[in-house]
Amino acid sequence: MTVTPAHPNAALVLIEFQREWLDPEHGRLNHLVEDRDLLDTAVHAAATALNAARAHGVPVVHVPLVLTPGAPELESWTPARLGLRAAIPKAGTWIEGSEGVRFAEAFRPAPGEPVVRGRAGASAFAGSSDFDLILRRLGVTDLYLAGFATHVCVESTLREAHDRGYAAHVIHDACAAFTRVQQEHVREHVIHHFGDELDAAEFAAACPGRIAASPAG
Amino acid sequence: MTVTPAHPNAALVLIEFQREWLDPEHGRLNHLVEDRDLLDTAVHAAATALNAARAHGVPVVHVPLVLTPGAPELESWTPARLGLRAAIPKAGTWIEGSEGVRFAEAFRPAPGEPVVRGRAGASAFAGSSDFDLILRRLGVTDLYLAGFATHVCVESTLREAHDRGYAAHVIHDACAAFTRVQQEHVREHVIHHFGDELDAAEFAAACPGRIAASPAG
Amino acid sequence: MTVTPAHPNAALVLIEFQREWLDPEHGRLNHLVEDRDLLDTAVHAAATALNAARAHGVPVVHVPLVLTPGAPELESWTPARLGLRAAIPKAGTWIEGSEGVRFAEAFRPAPGEPVVRGRAGASAFAGSSDFDLILRRLGVTDLYLAGFATHVCVESTLREAHDRGYAAHVIHDACAAFTRVQQEHVREHVIHHFGDELDAAEFAAACPGRIAASPAG
Amino acid sequence: MTVTPAHPNAALVLIEFQREWLDPEHGRLNHLVEDRDLLDTAVHAAATALNAARAHGVPVVHVPLVLTPGAPELESWTPARLGLRAAIPKAGTWIEGSEGVRFAEAFRPAPGEPVVRGRAGASAFAGSSDFDLILRRLGVTDLYLAGFATHVCVESTLREAHDRGYAAHVIHDACAAFTRVQQEHVREHVIHHFGDELDAAEFAAACPGRIAASPAG
Repeated sequence: MTVTPAHPNAALVLIEFQREWLDPEHGRLNHLVEDRDLLDTAVHAAATALNAARAHGVPVVHVPLVLTPGAPELESWTPARLGLRAAIPKAGTWIEGSEGVRFAEAFRPAPGEPVVRGRAGASAFAGSSDFDLILRRLGVTDLYLAGFATHVCVESTLREAHDRGYAAHVIHDACAAFTRVQQEHVREHVIHHFGDELDAAEFAAACPGRIAASPAG
Repeated sequence: MTVTPAHPNAALVLIEFQREWLDPEHGRLNHLVEDRDLLDTAVHAAATALNAARAHGVPVVHVPLVLTPGAPELESWTPARLGLRAAIPKAGTWIEGSEGVRFAEAFRPAPGEPVVRGRAGASAFAGSSDFDLILRRLGVTDLYLAGFATHVCVESTLREAHDRGYAAHVIHDACAAFTRVQQEHVREHVIHHFGDELDAAEFAAACPGRIAASPAG
Repeated sequence: MTVTPAHPNAALVLIEFQREWLDPEHGRLNHLVEDRDLLDTAVHAAATALNAARAHGVPVVHVPLVLTPGAPELESWTPARLGLRAAIPKAGTWIEGSEGVRFAEAFRPAPGEPVVRGRAGASAFAGSSDFDLILRRLGVTDLYLAGFATHVCVESTLREAHDRGYAAHVIHDACAAFTRVQQEHVREHVIHHFGDELDAAEFAAACPGRIAASPAG
Repeated sequence: MTVTPAHPNAALVLIEFQREWLDPEHGRLNHLVEDRDLLDTAVHAAATALNAARAHGVPVVHVPLVLTPGAPELESWTPARLGLRAAIPKAGTWIEGSEGVRFAEAFRPAPGEPVVRGRAGASAFAGSSDFDLILRRLGVTDLYLAGFATHVCVESTLREAHDRGYAAHVIHDACAAFTRVQQEHVREHVIHHFGDELDAAEFAAACPGRIAASPAG
């Protein structure tokens, strides 16, 4: 394992670590992750990344999806006829106050950790999200992404982060697609166009390097 | 073939029909499309779509990539270290005034057809692009996407169009990825999350339906 | 009085009709409006405009200011050192859950009327506001502005509305500056650069015209 | 004169130092500045500020207005019916390639100084402007504004800069309104809500302080 120190302006970005994905009982999307090993691995890897970030002062930004009843945010300015914007209201998922929308226990924001509000769409930047404002406030240039699903919201965030001028790094084992084929496709055919990848152990090993580098930089 | 009339507020969006992709002699990315049949099919299908749109008054919006020498636009506000933002300046492609940046002969904008300016990134909305302003000016709600490459710029545009509230339709045979595997992955695993797909013949058949529908709507 | 029918795509925009401005007891900014006649007139004129809009189906959009304790939204991405971004946290006004932040009784949103969220700044578009998305959803092109204060938040909204491509109309007697001099300055030297003005009686008279015009347009 | 060192992340922002305002012969708006002393003072003060910025390495950002013939940018997504968006196309000013659009001789950008592109509106951020991207690239948090006209484009830029999280400082004698009354109104009733003011001599005296402060900061 090559250890490259994490960028001094790094942030760990946790996308949708909510019960909707992570709780087999209350999560209405949990069953979509057909490859259960991908899901279990992602939860463990993300916990490793989160612990390392917190231990070494790397900012953690939480990106939940929380919609008001009826999901009017997804209508945006046109009726939601296609894609997630149509599917989510139909499924009734991600609604404020529901069981599914709560953060999974192990990934609840610590006091002071910013939680994105107003997001409405797959990308963390979508809708009236304050994600970009939060990142600017923190002086973040380098995003380390973890979450669900790899080929949907994580990938949309990766692509938009690239286009907005951020350096985006996917912590690949801390993300899960529905299937192994989807997961590997993103790693092989997508990530290198928009950023790069590392695993959670590499991220954890890189965090202290960032701290060491900080006083000099 | 089921013919659904095109949406009255439709536009045909042509992404990077420039020599960089389409000219084997002057195009420096032409060789990236390993599956030549995908490329040839895309050119023919896109021509079919373009003719139909023009014949029936469906607006056509051209989305080229044109960067100033050195590609400072891709530095955006951080140095371009990863992804296309790093790769393009290194390759020296897409530079204003170069042979590669010219529209392919068959896809040159007709007088009055809007051409997006200021785009800097994979998505047609990236950077200081006026794509959204053009679409608002035209009253467009439904984007019919064609271009290159399917899994890179077309897909980034599809994803951001969804998140911004547009209904996005991919004219799949008028787009080319580098390989058949990549092309089919987008069709099978990506498009339905963000929009839907049709082929160029379906789009062409749908255009007159739109005209008929207009006076009533 | 010349009656020009209101634009078919009009909306009445009510800026900060909250107790902070309107309640002499709970409103901490109420005393800033030195010219009490301006304030009383604005309340009556705005009520006239609101009644007319509701009676004739002109959409009403409410633009409150609501900040979380400590007003971190106003830090945005830099520490708030100047202007409203510094003054508001210092004064402790506009905080969620406070008395001052509640809508004045006569201007409470009716069921279904959109209420802007995420606004952080003087303009209704500022911060992670969903104002633009709401207007696009409603198909609004013409904003009729009322509220407080004329030369601060109303004027910032007017200016940004102009720059974003909206037609903006100030209902001048339904707005109040702190002094008559400020109020007249905006009317004489500012509005014509960014839109036009009318009074509440003209707006009320124009609303039915809009309805009559709709079937033909 | 109190000398406060300029912020280490400062930039001097020059708004519309073009012939349209500054050339009595070719400039079609030159006559709008009724108070000629305001105009002459602004030219001299801005030259002082520009020299100081260049001498001490404070970045200079040029914000011209340059529109394509017919000014379709000002139509944005709605027909330009009101304000500058209607007045400019009617007057035929600010058109690419015209005499009026050229920078005044003394204010031509030096090699490497960024020039904003795509601006369409009063604020420097309007339309598909790359102003925000340029400022982010330079790491700028503090804008020192100079230009024309004080109560129109300079003030719109001041207001939007505030709302976007920048600290904005108006170099008041390096700006000109049409009349002294307008100029003083902005100074007395507007600036303090959105930033602060200083004069060009203070700015020039502050620039070396910035350099001295840099190694320590």
